[in-house]
Amino acid sequence: MEPALNAKIIGRGKEFFNSISGEKPSLFNKGAWMGKAMDWSMKNEQFKVQMFRFVDVFPALTNGKLLTDHIREYFGNEKEMPSFLSTGAKVAGMFGSLGGAVLNKAISANIQEMARQFIVGETTKEAIKNLEKLRKEGFTAVMDVLGEATLSEAEAETYVNTYLELLEAMKKEQGSWSGLAGKGGDSKLDWGHAPKVNIAVKPTALFCLANPQDFEGSVVAIMARMERILIKTMELNGFLCIDMESYRHKEIILEVYRRLRLKYRDYPHLGIVLQAYLKDTDKDLADLLAWARQQKVMLSVRLVKGAYWDYETVKAKQNDWEIPVWTIKAESDAAFERQSRMILENHDICHFACASHNIRSISAVLEIAKELGVPDERYEFQVLYGMAEPVRKGILKVAGRVRLYCPYGDMVPGMGYLVRRLLENTANESFLRQSFAEEAQIERLLEDPAVTAERERTARAAKPKKSHSGPGGLSRFNNMAMVDFTRAEHRAAFPAAISSVRAQLGKTYPLFINGREVTTSDTIPTVNPAKPSEVLGLICQAGIPEVEKAIAAAKSAFPAWRDTPPEVRAGYLLKAAEIARKRAFELSAWQVLEIGKQWDQAYADVAEAIDFLEYYAREMIRLGKPQRVGHAPGELNHYFYEPKGLAAIIAPWNFPLAISMGMASAAIVTGNPVVFKPSAITGIIGHHLVEIFREAGLPDGVFNFVPGRGSVMGDFLVDHPDISLIAFTGSMEVGLRIVERAAKVHPGQPNVKKIISEMGGKNAVIIDDDADLDEAVPHVLYSAFGFQGQKCSACSRLIVLDAVYDRFMERLLAMAKATSVGPSEDPAHYMGAVSDDKAMKSILEYINIGKQEGQVLYMSPTPQGEGFWVPMTIIGGIRPEHRLAQEEVFGPVLAVMRAKDFDQAIEWANSTRFALTGGIFSRSPEHLAQARRELRVGNLYINRNNTGALVQRQPFGGARMSGVGTKAGGPDYLLHFMDPRVVTENTMRRGFAPMEEDDDWVE
Amino acid sequence: MEPALNAKIIGRGKEFFNSISGEKPSLFNKGAWMGKAMDWSMKNEQFKVQMFRFVDVFPALTNGKLLTDHIREYFGNEKEMPSFLSTGAKVAGMFGSLGGAVLNKAISANIQEMARQFIVGETTKEAIKNLEKLRKEGFTAVMDVLGEATLSEAEAETYVNTYLELLEAMKKEQGSWSGLAGKGGDSKLDWGHAPKVNIAVKPTALFCLANPQDFEGSVVAIMARMERILIKTMELNGFLCIDMESYRHKEIILEVYRRLRLKYRDYPHLGIVLQAYLKDTDKDLADLLAWARQQKVMLSVRLVKGAYWDYETVKAKQNDWEIPVWTIKAESDAAFERQSRMILENHDICHFACASHNIRSISAVLEIAKELGVPDERYEFQVLYGMAEPVRKGILKVAGRVRLYCPYGDMVPGMGYLVRRLLENTANESFLRQSFAEEAQIERLLEDPAVTAERERTARAAKPKKSHSGPGGLSRFNNMAMVDFTRAEHRAAFPAAISSVRAQLGKTYPLFINGREVTTSDTIPTVNPAKPSEVLGLICQAGIPEVEKAIAAAKSAFPAWRDTPPEVRAGYLLKAAEIARKRAFELSAWQVLEIGKQWDQAYADVAEAIDFLEYYAREMIRLGKPQRVGHAPGELNHYFYEPKGLAAIIAPWNFPLAISMGMASAAIVTGNPVVFKPSAITGIIGHHLVEIFREAGLPDGVFNFVPGRGSVMGDFLVDHPDISLIAFTGSMEVGLRIVERAAKVHPGQPNVKKIISEMGGKNAVIIDDDADLDEAVPHVLYSAFGFQGQKCSACSRLIVLDAVYDRFMERLLAMAKATSVGPSEDPAHYMGAVSDDKAMKSILEYINIGKQEGQVLYMSPTPQGEGFWVPMTIIGGIRPEHRLAQEEVFGPVLAVMRAKDFDQAIEWANSTRFALTGGIFSRSPEHLAQARRELRVGNLYINRNNTGALVQRQPFGGARMSGVGTKAGGPDYLLHFMDPRVVTENTMRRGFAPMEEDDDWVE
Repeated sequence: MEPALNAKIIGRGKEFFNSISGEKPSLFNKGAWMGKAMDWSMKNEQFKVQMFRFVDVFPALTNGKLLTDHIREYFGNEKEMPSFLSTGAKVAGMFGSLGGAVLNKAISANIQEMARQFIVGETTKEAIKNLEKLRKEGFTAVMDVLGEATLSEAEAETYVNTYLELLEAMKKEQGSWSGLAGKGGDSKLDWGHAPKVNIAVKPTALFCLANPQDFEGSVVAIMARMERILIKTMELNGFLCIDMESYRHKEIILEVYRRLRLKYRDYPHLGIVLQAYLKDTDKDLADLLAWARQQKVMLSVRLVKGAYWDYETVKAKQNDWEIPVWTIKAESDAAFERQSRMILENHDICHFACASHNIRSISAVLEIAKELGVPDERYEFQVLYGMAEPVRKGILKVAGRVRLYCPYGDMVPGMGYLVRRLLENTANESFLRQSFAEEAQIERLLEDPAVTAERERTARAAKPKKSHSGPGGLSRFNNMAMVDFTRAEHRAAFPAAISSVRAQLGKTYPLFINGREVTTSDTIPTVNPAKPSEVLGLICQAGIPEVEKAIAAAKSAFPAWRDTPPEVRAGYLLKAAEIARKRAFELSAWQVLEIGKQWDQAYADVAEAIDFLEYYAREMIRLGKPQRVGHAPGELNHYFYEPKGLAAIIAPWNFPLAISMGMASAAIVTGNPVVFKPSAITGIIGHHLVEIFREAGLPDGVFNFVPGRGSVMGDFLVDHPDISLIAFTGSMEVGLRIVERAAKVHPGQPNVKKIISEMGGKNAVIIDDDADLDEAVPHVLYSAFGFQGQKCSACSRLIVLDAVYDRFMERLLAMAKATSVGPSEDPAHYMGAVSDDKAMKSILEYINIGKQEGQVLYMSPTPQGEGFWVPMTIIGGIRPEHRLAQEEVFGPVLAVMRAKDFDQAIEWANSTRFALTGGIFSRSPEHLAQARRELRVGNLYINRNNTGALVQRQPFGGARMSGVGTKAGGPDYLLHFMDPRVVTENTMRRGFAPMEEDDDWVE
Repeated sequence: MEPALNAKIIGRGKEFFNSISGEKPSLFNKGAWMGKAMDWSMKNEQFKVQMFRFVDVFPALTNGKLLTDHIREYFGNEKEMPSFLSTGAKVAGMFGSLGGAVLNKAISANIQEMARQFIVGETTKEAIKNLEKLRKEGFTAVMDVLGEATLSEAEAETYVNTYLELLEAMKKEQGSWSGLAGKGGDSKLDWGHAPKVNIAVKPTALFCLANPQDFEGSVVAIMARMERILIKTMELNGFLCIDMESYRHKEIILEVYRRLRLKYRDYPHLGIVLQAYLKDTDKDLADLLAWARQQKVMLSVRLVKGAYWDYETVKAKQNDWEIPVWTIKAESDAAFERQSRMILENHDICHFACASHNIRSISAVLEIAKELGVPDERYEFQVLYGMAEPVRKGILKVAGRVRLYCPYGDMVPGMGYLVRRLLENTANESFLRQSFAEEAQIERLLEDPAVTAERERTARAAKPKKSHSGPGGLSRFNNMAMVDFTRAEHRAAFPAAISSVRAQLGKTYPLFINGREVTTSDTIPTVNPAKPSEVLGLICQAGIPEVEKAIAAAKSAFPAWRDTPPEVRAGYLLKAAEIARKRAFELSAWQVLEIGKQWDQAYADVAEAIDFLEYYAREMIRLGKPQRVGHAPGELNHYFYEPKGLAAIIAPWNFPLAISMGMASAAIVTGNPVVFKPSAITGIIGHHLVEIFREAGLPDGVFNFVPGRGSVMGDFLVDHPDISLIAFTGSMEVGLRIVERAAKVHPGQPNVKKIISEMGGKNAVIIDDDADLDEAVPHVLYSAFGFQGQKCSACSRLIVLDAVYDRFMERLLAMAKATSVGPSEDPAHYMGAVSDDKAMKSILEYINIGKQEGQVLYMSPTPQGEGFWVPMTIIGGIRPEHRLAQEEVFGPVLAVMRAKDFDQAIEWANSTRFALTGGIFSRSPEHLAQARRELRVGNLYINRNNTGALVQRQPFGGARMSGVGTKAGGPDYLLHFMDPRVVTENTMRRGFAPMEEDDDWVE
């Protein structure tokens, strides 16, 4: 920045600080309860977590017992609890009936007061009244309706209607408000130029299925409702600003803005929010300005720093996406100044709302505007209601034009807003915290943020990095990045890949034995389940002679493969991963067509296959290094692993690449040559393993592909004496049959067969009485119906606590109704066709059983005409003894059970033969601890969907009749494919033993 | 030490150094090959190891190919090999036929010359000739016959006869030698007083089974032969000195000396060696002097520092015994001075030979003797032939009386002696190395060693100690110390414990179910297999109702036990270990009587049981800590383990406490309640588990004891649906039956049963053509016949390479003949009775088969009268297809196979259904590497016995039909008893996720 300008900014900043000297935002007033809570939170991270989480759950604590219990669970007993929390209660016996009531009342009152600090009113009436008060103080407002997450069409409508009502109410009132003083000419307007009615609208509240995967559908749906609000706003000559939310929806929101902007090109008062903390924003802003000039439309931009920093960072790290936000706070501040200047430079076409509490940022905008000679009516300042009172006062003094962002509405959704504000204010890098709670040096607070950022970048670069190296000199294992539909190229990739795949249909796929293709006259077609007349390919079928050949090939490959060093074997997997990564969209497209996976589900399957390759390669290198056991001198004991022998891999169709690749690659990398039998339903995807391993250059005979009819060659393969290891994933019936048959040792058999058998599930999700329904509803829907519920991990039992049953089910059913069933290649559909005719019939039969055992709560429409269609089905009134509570349906049928309390919910959840996955939505620390202990499933998920286990992060598999306790993608998995050996060497000869570094020698 | 004396010693030492200034021992002469080899060895530890090991194996390299191969394997290719080694060969193409021959010749000649440096001759004649030369230079000698380890009576006789021949030869010669000059009166004697004939004898060479466990037997046998040599020596009026060897035999040797000393009390020339490096020696010397005064006999002591420091240290560390030697070199030097003074103070009854090359030590003896006025004829100096030539010259100058210790005999045993000398001279702390190869400061070399030692002790104490802490704040796991029969109290403990156990015979042992004793009318007696008429006790037998009760008890104990924290469960095991440790000798005594284990074998079984308890306790604490997997922020994934359910433990009789305790404690500590069925043959030892766990306070129902007839309740237990886990150790037939039956899932069964099945073995030991037979013979004998061969790990096939077959078998058979079969309670017997009547019949049948398939090479006599006696049997001419090469005999029958080469030996070793243990004796680095790779057994042992796996150090178990790849006592064992679970928590609420320390956060 130009030094002269910077000096002016600093000068103005100092004046600003002087003008508010001695004042404190009420948030940091330690005399009051809220100030104490903030003070404790800033000093004690653990308390802060508990405090904020308690604020979050607070609205759900609808009776005294719930409230008392949660207070105790979150803040501990009398001794642990900070005294300001327990004031008054201690004397009365804190958790007794009397003390409890005092405590409940005090804490409730204080939290409500804290919320009221930020919320201008709970009703339209109250909000307008308070707004009028603010106007008297010289502030105008932008009104924002608080809302729960919108999970249905009905909820979206409610949200729209609230705005329409607000506008209607303001329509009457605004006439009675005199405009705030200003330089402009129209005294009926604020400051002589600005509409007195100003609203902000959150676009995702207008459509419950907003999702970049269905970009066009999302834009159209949001725009339709936004337009209704805009039309009403225009009636009032009001201002409508489209709020920006999380990064995921940014492109959708920009598109909605552009379309509305064009459609109502002459209406000036339509704005959009941009977030300076996004790395994209420099370009987004430039693009938007260029677009506006080209289209000759006027813009209005509210520039904010951005309020979802934690969320964006966490989500990006979890999905291995580039972090979309600046990771140094000063970088966002610098971007804010840079972007402010760009907007102010374009003030002829772009109105500017500077929304920041940062005195440096505000001073910069004031000085830049002055330098550029921007007229007053082209820019204004916005601050949040309830925050930073000294700052708003200061701006009012120097600039006059201050608009408060005023949320109003119910307390329940208000809590989310409150937590965001608390988080913002207690962050170490918060300008307000530093200015008012910690009294940092004014010089430092006013420094050019570009300079600060540069200094911090340098300091960060100088810090020692955590080592991220994995075994064998490789990088540490990382899950493959999830598909990112915020990126236009990912959105475009799917239709392109699907159409490219369609051009390849109708081929015949041979067997692959000993490095050679083998064709058979017997073939089976595979088809598109959404359109069975579309034959994708013909799969050659192995009979017994082919299986024999494959086993012979594996047998002759075994010695050399076993003796191939672990790192070399791992190298083939890494090569295979590389090949699959390059084909990721194409492989996904095959899954969309051959088994009806939704785009994201298909990509996740391919990514998981790649993860298995990358993970097991590293695991093998780790385990391949002999481990010295014991440290006595004169003796070397090495513990190491060897392959068991020939592996039969029998794979399912539901994760046709991931599970096949996982089992096969584990066997291969541990040194066991493979005879692979894919599911008949997904023969082409099965053949992808051939293509990948072949290109990776795997030696002949190490991987053999023998699709075939189970009735013809299944038992033969299982019984064969040369097979030492069977890895199976599929139904319990087939799994147990394999376990039993394989236990018989046949003549000439070298080993007792090892069976890795992953079988079914009947997975329950518990909804506790304090669950966050905004989270629980969409996660349950996804867990139950994603990929048509055809996952062994899928939620097939929903156990809802009586206290929350009605509210939860209402929202769940409403959300279900918003979804549609149709071909998965169209991303507008939530659910596609099921795997095949047989599955369709079986699932429909279970729906009939469900109708008898309980009541149908929802059955979706299904497409007419051909295809294996089954409705999305939710059946209530199910009890533990019902078949729908005990048997695996393996389709989109959710059995709902109403439990009287949490203990019963846990008991019911555990009451099946299976123990695969489970889920719980609760915010009670005690219930979560209880679920960890007692909800005995292989994979328990807390407050999230219970499907989509990731390699390494969620090693997958269960016990009881769900599996034999192996955990795919986990640290012990490869051990099941190997036998440990020990070599002990006496290193002493003639009394002379060389010393080893890790000997226990004399000390 | 008194300063004046110390000053005198230093003064004399300096004079000494001056007097030999500029001279170097030939060993350090870098102009010669030997000096170069020493120089390289001192500079390069890796070369030193290879060099010394090559010297060790050299005598076994009896043809050109063997020699060339070993040179390449030990010293690498042309580029890696030091040039002095390859001189001359390089030009001719080093490993070609011409270069190889040159290399062989050069290296052979050089090594032989190096050996000749230390050996006074290869034959008696040559030795005497060289001795006469030495006499001309003014030195007298003590003659020592080099010998291989004595492995048989015949070899002991040969050794005796060599001495007798030597003495006979000297008898003739000594008359012609004039006495060396000296102050004494008799000119026919050396120095006027000393016999000209002086020999040193190694006592263990006189008895191949010398062993402190059989203390009296060893003393008697050694004394008998020593006496014959002494009598012959006395004929010549010669001097006999009994050499001291390893610490293990010290007490035996002292006892032999005392007995001979008393028996020939008037003969003055009988000496003993004491080793100053032993911590015992101060006391041993004082005791010996006191004893001599009391008995009024004259002593002669040769004081040495001691030559087996590495060996003693390694052995002690391996067995967890106190290290018997001083671990700071200067402590030994200080002890040498202290003990020299004590002897010199007692010169009236004790003649002294000071045997050291250390100029400080020599100077100290000279000055102390002077101070005490010791007459010349009461002390002399000894140095080793071929070493430290300047030192011997120096002593000759100042004291006159120098005797050289002169080994003579074959090159083969000479190599062991050579390695010891090389080791001594290249040790960092070697006085000679420091004085002559490194030219250390004379001041430092002459420092009072007590001062040096104190300084080093202080320095060592100040050094940071390696952490030896284990999981959960416990000490790191250490194997229980082996029984130490060098300690008189351990030797006495066995007869005492056996007699105390005998006083308790005849009791009835009840079942133990749900914390209560349950008696049944059906009982089975257990008997002493060496005397079946001796009934030890009556064991109540469980029928189906009792097994049902036990399962019910375990089932009701399961939930609470599963939920007991891992550290608490581990605590019970540690308590049990404590209890068993206190009863170790008593528990061992029961094994001697109930199953016929030799003392050491019985104790080892008890120690292993305790090891399992200590190890699994720590392992459970380690595994009990949930492990975070993945590090994405906002999500916590915990991977942890849970018990599988009810465990049936079916145990064998051969390691009746160790294996039972191992399987049961693994199940218990992982949270699986146990129904334990011991073997009927060892019911009392089975009941020891009840006693131990009961005293440890294990909750009711966690451990249930149900001995019973397999035919009555075996299948019932295996089939029972409530059993989730079966741990079995026993025969292949029973193991496979369990595997097959247990695979069937019965109605109501919660889990697919997990089977841990350790089965049989048919274990081969390979004797390579370069094997060290001194080591191989006794280890093979022990591996095959220890505990009557009744170990699944026992050597039952011996594969000897053709080239070494005759020599090896001759020695093996000769050693076998030296052993005896009889009741194990008498430690004189190498082998006892077999387990029972049924086993006896089966083994005898196999011996008959062996007679048909091959030739009996040895069948020992067996005791007459009652008892389950089977002869120690060695059968030759066995081929891979024979039943004796394929079927497990489980008794003292060794099948010997003659292989044409190493590849065939490996192929044969791998040619059975089993893969449990294996062994190889070889000194070829390439063969050892090949065996590591290709001898595919669970436990391979290199150059040692292939039984006696230790917990943690040799995790035990095999694959193929030997087992299912679990490894008892290894790092993965407990995993087989548990199922992993994962709990995934989404920790983000309202966009706020607490940070975890190990999150992958933004960098």
